[in-house]
Amino acid sequence: MRDVYHEELDSIGRTLIEMTGLVGAAMSRATAALLDADLQVAESVISADDAVDALQHELDSRALDLLARQQPVAGDLRTIITSLRMSADLERMGDLARHVAKVARLRYPEIAIPEDLRATIAEMGRIAGELARKTAEIIEGRDVNAARELPEDDDAMDELHRALFRALLDKTGEYSVETAIDVTLIGRYYERFADHAVSVARRLIFLVTGERH
Amino acid sequence: MRDVYHEELDSIGRTLIEMTGLVGAAMSRATAALLDADLQVAESVISADDAVDALQHELDSRALDLLARQQPVAGDLRTIITSLRMSADLERMGDLARHVAKVARLRYPEIAIPEDLRATIAEMGRIAGELARKTAEIIEGRDVNAARELPEDDDAMDELHRALFRALLDKTGEYSVETAIDVTLIGRYYERFADHAVSVARRLIFLVTGERH
Repeated sequence: MRDVYHEELDSIGRTLIEMTGLVGAAMSRATAALLDADLQVAESVISADDAVDALQHELDSRALDLLARQQPVAGDLRTIITSLRMSADLERMGDLARHVAKVARLRYPEIAIPEDLRATIAEMGRIAGELARKTAEIIEGRDVNAARELPEDDDAMDELHRALFRALLDKTGEYSVETAIDVTLIGRYYERFADHAVSVARRLIFLVTGERH
Repeated sequence: MRDVYHEELDSIGRTLIEMTGLVGAAMSRATAALLDADLQVAESVISADDAVDALQHELDSRALDLLARQQPVAGDLRTIITSLRMSADLERMGDLARHVAKVARLRYPEIAIPEDLRATIAEMGRIAGELARKTAEIIEGRDVNAARELPEDDDAMDELHRALFRALLDKTGEYSVETAIDVTLIGRYYERFADHAVSVARRLIFLVTGERH
């Protein structure tokens, strides 16, 4: 019985890694859709988010079922609760990738991002993909050291986010209100995506060490 | 022993209601700070959010402790897990109220919102306060019927959110990029606040009936 139980726990861990891979790929593809005004890619990101939501529901039911049937204590209990919280972060990261893709779709065939801001958005997309890749490794290896380094990537994201606002404000008159709205929302989607990746890393640190932050 | 346990469960419920009251008051006061450019109120909303975060940490530790010590099953287990999720929603609602107050502080002594959009923002603030008030009642009374009606208030919030964008876009040239950024972010803070209130209501429905949505 305990073996089936630990297999279940491992399988929950694998689902978290799978979700992380999916949301990372979604944000990278949403970025490409946004910068190339690629409607087909945008549509596929939007519809692929259902798979992330389904994985979350499935993971949550399995975790709740384990809690109810096995009444785990100490470490296993913490693992299950942490998994529920990570899955909520990951589900939200999927939503944010979908939001980016929706802006791409809304403005198609135009490119929502003005030319001189595209390099910044491309870099935000690259960091988002990198954060997801590292987050998957952190979960897989229960890698506390790597988890402690993740906020550095988030700092880089925050800096790009500020740069985006500065660029919008510096060239007043050059950008339309519509562009200001799109860029403001998109910047926030990337920033929140990064925040949730850091949140997953923090939860991993708490899981392994018992430390908060 | 079981009595202490059920007292603990009740006390977790009371903490959720207290958190809901705090975040509702925070959003109402943040709205006033924003529309009156009242720096003192803005500062007090920003610093008061620490109390919400502290309540969340305290609630979460108590809930995890109950899970570990009492190994609850069925209904009690669901109550504890749902409480953890509600506290995460409520903590986020507190952050969003703080974000609104920070925009008020950033633009002080100016009023961040242009005159002709203030009525819309005032109404969004009113609905946010109303949503929080109803959410507290829903938790307190485990009121599934009221919980099912909450999305109507959220629809009203979404409609105001769309009206805000329409107003920004209709009068192109009249608003600065800075105003467009502020209004876009603030609109999103109210919208997300409402989404989280609806999420709490949905969790209550799940808790009481076992139904998702």
